[in-house]
Amino acid sequence: MFKLYYAPGTCALASHIALEEAGAAYTTERLDFKANQQNSPEYLAINPKGRVPSLVTDRGVLTETPAMLAFIAQSFPQAKLAPLEDAFAFAQAQAFNSYLCSTVHVAHAHKLRGARWAIEESSFADMKRKVPQTVGACFALIERDMLRGPWVMGEQYTICDPYLYTIAGWLEGDGVDLAALPKVADHRKRMSERPAVRKVLADEQG
Amino acid sequence: MFKLYYAPGTCALASHIALEEAGAAYTTERLDFKANQQNSPEYLAINPKGRVPSLVTDRGVLTETPAMLAFIAQSFPQAKLAPLEDAFAFAQAQAFNSYLCSTVHVAHAHKLRGARWAIEESSFADMKRKVPQTVGACFALIERDMLRGPWVMGEQYTICDPYLYTIAGWLEGDGVDLAALPKVADHRKRMSERPAVRKVLADEQG
Repeated sequence: MFKLYYAPGTCALASHIALEEAGAAYTTERLDFKANQQNSPEYLAINPKGRVPSLVTDRGVLTETPAMLAFIAQSFPQAKLAPLEDAFAFAQAQAFNSYLCSTVHVAHAHKLRGARWAIEESSFADMKRKVPQTVGACFALIERDMLRGPWVMGEQYTICDPYLYTIAGWLEGDGVDLAALPKVADHRKRMSERPAVRKVLADEQG
Repeated sequence: MFKLYYAPGTCALASHIALEEAGAAYTTERLDFKANQQNSPEYLAINPKGRVPSLVTDRGVLTETPAMLAFIAQSFPQAKLAPLEDAFAFAQAQAFNSYLCSTVHVAHAHKLRGARWAIEESSFADMKRKVPQTVGACFALIERDMLRGPWVMGEQYTICDPYLYTIAGWLEGDGVDLAALPKVADHRKRMSERPAVRKVLADEQG
């Protein structure tokens, strides 16, 4: 039995969907970011980074979305959430997820989390103004070169799909025009029709 | 036969060391960042992100350090560069590398790459001033909670070690005091004594 710590609207959604798609036995624990619960002593004892997601397992706690997604795929091989028998194809899936984590999510985070990297209000405003451009450039590359269709890796649904869906869900808020991203828009629509995605969204929004 | 595209002083060093430790057959191609060679049409055809590292294989090109490191470990299992038979331990190694990629490297990048996320010179200066604090906080966490010793994952040398070594090599330039990081300093010393590391550094600096 796993326990997933999450907050609504965060990248934890990707791991939440992956657990559901895998048929894993899991419970969830919602953190209240408005009350800064992610920095409470109780939660910092689970994840000293003060971030979500965290996945509590009987072996210990895992963090970092790309690592958690690969772990879920490897722990439930019958769900076929990654090309586990092909190191090159697995690396391509991991490279996609790493790009989302270290470049796309980071670009997005400059809208509201500028205080992570600067001190002055003027810098935060400057960062925020550039988000439509930086996130837009990331998604233009995803649209052109990375999203094979219908799923990220092609015919097979993988751990890349819930992660892309999660971050693509921030596009309107980031001021990026979805009309220029027809493959991404189609992917979001396909994802939103999956029973696992509907169930998880209802849980997180409930 | 692999071909690694790298530039000296970049995170490509981690994959370069891992290839050497794995006993892989590979060649290298150095990019001249001062001449902006990473954004030349020839290189963008290999890696449209215009970044290093890129690893050319007979199946195609791989990018993103965490994905490449896992691929190298999986492709050369006899080198025992990751706990491949234990999904949880493998996820812990991947979580460490993901943290380096998406948090530590990103914190460091705000010193010289502020133009990725902002427009004004005043913002770049502000970001630059905060780097000792942000990178210092990351490494304080690594020192306290993450680096088990003597290697990152404990007794077994893994793909986490060349990656930590690479990013820890930027600490002085980032204004972080190594005296407060005795385990990290010891790790750097151990790494610098490994024949594979000496060979790769001589290659990159030659």
